[in-house]
Amino acid sequence: MSSKLRIGFQGEVGAYSEEAVGALYKTEQSVAVPFPSFESVFEALQSGEVDRAVLPIENSLFGSVHQNYDLLREHDVNIAAEVQIRIKHQLLAPKGSSIDQITHVFSHPQAIGQCRQFLRTHLPNAEVVPAYDTAGAAKQVAAKQNPAHAAIASRAAAREYDLATLASDIESNHENYTRFLALGVPTVDLNEGLDAANATQMGFKTSLLYAQKENLPGGLFKSLAVFALRDIDLFKIESRPLIGSPGKYIFYLDLEGHASDDSIKNALHHLKEIAAFVKILGSYRVGRFVE
Amino acid sequence: MSSKLRIGFQGEVGAYSEEAVGALYKTEQSVAVPFPSFESVFEALQSGEVDRAVLPIENSLFGSVHQNYDLLREHDVNIAAEVQIRIKHQLLAPKGSSIDQITHVFSHPQAIGQCRQFLRTHLPNAEVVPAYDTAGAAKQVAAKQNPAHAAIASRAAAREYDLATLASDIESNHENYTRFLALGVPTVDLNEGLDAANATQMGFKTSLLYAQKENLPGGLFKSLAVFALRDIDLFKIESRPLIGSPGKYIFYLDLEGHASDDSIKNALHHLKEIAAFVKILGSYRVGRFVE
Repeated sequence: MSSKLRIGFQGEVGAYSEEAVGALYKTEQSVAVPFPSFESVFEALQSGEVDRAVLPIENSLFGSVHQNYDLLREHDVNIAAEVQIRIKHQLLAPKGSSIDQITHVFSHPQAIGQCRQFLRTHLPNAEVVPAYDTAGAAKQVAAKQNPAHAAIASRAAAREYDLATLASDIESNHENYTRFLALGVPTVDLNEGLDAANATQMGFKTSLLYAQKENLPGGLFKSLAVFALRDIDLFKIESRPLIGSPGKYIFYLDLEGHASDDSIKNALHHLKEIAAFVKILGSYRVGRFVE
Repeated sequence: MSSKLRIGFQGEVGAYSEEAVGALYKTEQSVAVPFPSFESVFEALQSGEVDRAVLPIENSLFGSVHQNYDLLREHDVNIAAEVQIRIKHQLLAPKGSSIDQITHVFSHPQAIGQCRQFLRTHLPNAEVVPAYDTAGAAKQVAAKQNPAHAAIASRAAAREYDLATLASDIESNHENYTRFLALGVPTVDLNEGLDAANATQMGFKTSLLYAQKENLPGGLFKSLAVFALRDIDLFKIESRPLIGSPGKYIFYLDLEGHASDDSIKNALHHLKEIAAFVKILGSYRVGRFVE
């Protein structure tokens, strides 16, 4: 038996990031390793303590995770794959409990907010107790085994802490997705262990960061022209102001196509003429949405 | 004495949003009113329960608050002003306590993460206890009055809960800013009560949302051309994919200038030719950075 790929993620066991690990990597070939912070995941990847990392890069309600873009810029890592995980909240309680017994509901305030309608209708008298994260709330409910206590957390948390699911997918807004990236160091085969089911038929995506040269009039327009002139479509564009440097920005771009395509090679050559710096983060299959 | 402007914000009293209210509005003419969620702030503004709202729209580390962009799109409100507040964390404890007495530190995990270096150096043996928000942690420490308990929270929380500041500005990354918008309904004078000290000499900014027409080749490039052709600079551009509609996006744009400027009027006329929808969120003075 070959040894398993160690995949680092941030959060408690049972967090949504762990679901992303399971969607991206074949479960029989990989093991998910929790870390307390994004920085510590990057450090573990760079030192070889883990073989890959899976990290959130943007959420459909809460925006890009700039911190992980910064860490991508600072570290010598490449993107291996992506997946979009729908954030689905479950009402979890100790086994044997039923919904009419619940007097207290524990979860992160964001998750509580997303399930307010459900709580109003089905548990109007329950006391809502804020917790610092959803998986932590599930862990706590499992530890106490009080049949009157429930947590709002993920399906992975239900499995991890052996809790019963009293109600499924109780969030009001079903358009809550988090996009996760799988990362590895450039010297390894980034396709190893990836679950092929995750790649869509939409072809490749290339992600990059760049900064405009200073005092280049119409710099943004010119930098996008290098792609438009070659009929290369964009999946994402975002400007991020550099704090303390008014008028200076970093741009996040996701392009349709592979960095080895002639048109993209030419476009990147052209971009380097007019940009202060360009960093290619990787080319990878457009990932699926996991409901 | 005339009645004070009621300014709605989301969070506990002592939250960073309350600092933004204080930076945007003259304190003697306004009163900050807390609400549990962003939705409830918008509802209160629309119903007239409050006169203005102050809400976070983006953070330099954590990205745009898409939820508030959605609420801006759905409600008939205008932007009156903006401000960027530096998120500075304080170590707070009951009065009479000193740092060598502290055995427990309470705060939100994000704030704890940002102060890890300080805690490692100055409180290596203290137990760190996650709380659901920074102002809530301060409230709890104030309620118990245990001189061994400290919270990491804002200066506003120190004032609100009458706590001593044992150490100031203990966060490692000083480039953590949140941009807040002041909002009002379109039928009122949006300059009323604003603190003029907040506006910089950089002139006006205009914010808008738009969506491209479907199947318009090079749509993004063409929509930016309407501004580039008229030498209008952009402060911000961000694409946001519409979940469930692959290839469809909403764009967030901040332009330099006022919607009543001839060049911007012409550009917006041009943009409407090629966009599926355009919503102007308002023109307002470029706001300052509050350290």
